[in-house]
Amino acid sequence: MIEGVHFDRSWISLQDIGWRAAAAALSDVAAMAGRPLGILLSLGVPEADAGSAVVEVQRGAEALCQEEGVQVLGGDLARSPGPLFLDVVAVGETDQPVLRSGGEEEDELWVTGRLGGSALAVSGWAQGHSPPERARAAFARPRPRLREARWLADHISFKAMVDLSDGLAGDAGHLAAASGLSVVLDAEAIPLHEDFDPSARVGGKALHMALTGGEDYELLFAAAPGSMDPRRDAFEERFGVLLTRVGTLSAGSGVFLATPDGEVRPLEKGGFSHFQGRKNG
Amino acid sequence: MIEGVHFDRSWISLQDIGWRAAAAALSDVAAMAGRPLGILLSLGVPEADAGSAVVEVQRGAEALCQEEGVQVLGGDLARSPGPLFLDVVAVGETDQPVLRSGGEEEDELWVTGRLGGSALAVSGWAQGHSPPERARAAFARPRPRLREARWLADHISFKAMVDLSDGLAGDAGHLAAASGLSVVLDAEAIPLHEDFDPSARVGGKALHMALTGGEDYELLFAAAPGSMDPRRDAFEERFGVLLTRVGTLSAGSGVFLATPDGEVRPLEKGGFSHFQGRKNG
Repeated sequence: MIEGVHFDRSWISLQDIGWRAAAAALSDVAAMAGRPLGILLSLGVPEADAGSAVVEVQRGAEALCQEEGVQVLGGDLARSPGPLFLDVVAVGETDQPVLRSGGEEEDELWVTGRLGGSALAVSGWAQGHSPPERARAAFARPRPRLREARWLADHISFKAMVDLSDGLAGDAGHLAAASGLSVVLDAEAIPLHEDFDPSARVGGKALHMALTGGEDYELLFAAAPGSMDPRRDAFEERFGVLLTRVGTLSAGSGVFLATPDGEVRPLEKGGFSHFQGRKNG
Repeated sequence: MIEGVHFDRSWISLQDIGWRAAAAALSDVAAMAGRPLGILLSLGVPEADAGSAVVEVQRGAEALCQEEGVQVLGGDLARSPGPLFLDVVAVGETDQPVLRSGGEEEDELWVTGRLGGSALAVSGWAQGHSPPERARAAFARPRPRLREARWLADHISFKAMVDLSDGLAGDAGHLAAASGLSVVLDAEAIPLHEDFDPSARVGGKALHMALTGGEDYELLFAAAPGSMDPRRDAFEERFGVLLTRVGTLSAGSGVFLATPDGEVRPLEKGGFSHFQGRKNG
């Protein structure tokens, strides 16, 4: 995570930056239903920030680790002649990793939580105003779905899972492609972040952010038809996290969006390209 | 490893940069006598370098991995608005990690290879001329002492080990401090890189570089008195690598240098400070 590319210090605190980088890395462990063991935190820090920035960023990463019952196991520190940057590696273990390639035809796609909050916050900052508090928190203090993922692995017939770092459209596409299938997402079903103006859905702005915004760090997984419904209440009650069926895997390839008017249209590739930077298309 | 801090592209190729970062990380696995499993390579790449630089750096890292029989297991890629930078995490395993804290009073300190080559190369570049080829290779294409470390762990009564990333004085100091002891280094014994001018020892420049230059990625280890001597020939024959006794652990604290005139003087802390950058004191 690089200053000026993935975050801006006028948006969030140095502690948030540490928390967020640790959360993003641990979210990859969650996506495989792994048990987290800890993180390695490497920091490149501009000379002017030397002492305090290092402490603040570490403190944020440690706070998230404490929440998840893991530790900062090690890392490295260097002077950066450019921006502040972090590289976090999460260490986890599992005997049965859930891969993205296990989806089967007719599997249901489910998602945890609500989507688009991070994108909503970034959009606010980009326009020069403070985003709503919950959207800000979605960006600044995401929680990797570690416990949720392990519960799911224990309780349902699991096929494939990813975490939502690139946006629902992109990550559903990754899961479908890895499974040799296509995916149809149901526009009406997609759970939008609470802070979206109800009118925003009409114009499609909220839906667009949920589909392409990225960095929600929710889980998207494929489950055998009918296997999730009987356990949804238990999940939502236990974790206080919404669980929503958002689509279906089918033969073929590509990502499609089914709209209320009965249309099914292909989605362009969107989301976050790690090389080209954020796309606000 | 950050451009402008740890390397300069006018010194070495992008493939060298990848090799070197991978070697430095795997050297930490060697220092614990671990079995390497692979590396994770994260790259921050300026926009202007996009395609080719990524391929070149990866190719260099893969070449070193192939030499060591391991793989690039994963990593990440981001656009850097500043310099090119790399973060490499090495993954290894061991049932009996050799730590730096196990040194005992009267243990002998031994070092593999010859020291100061990297510093000699950097000093050449800094003065605007091309360094001798072997010194250049010591900087650009270091070999982590993975096989050597495991052989040593199998064949001698091991106490403590570090790899030389900060320079002999600094790293011997780390080992001694972790073991609650002091260390006396024997100035005459320190094996200097082949490319040093024989006259350089007189002025102390070569010795200074060997003591504080860093980035030699040789092993420094503590062995019970007399335990290494009978096995030295076997080691040198097997690996074609020099093995030299350079000092002794004693009660107390600090790092001292014994000179031919019989003087024993404390060494100032030198070597490479990861935050302040290279010190050519």
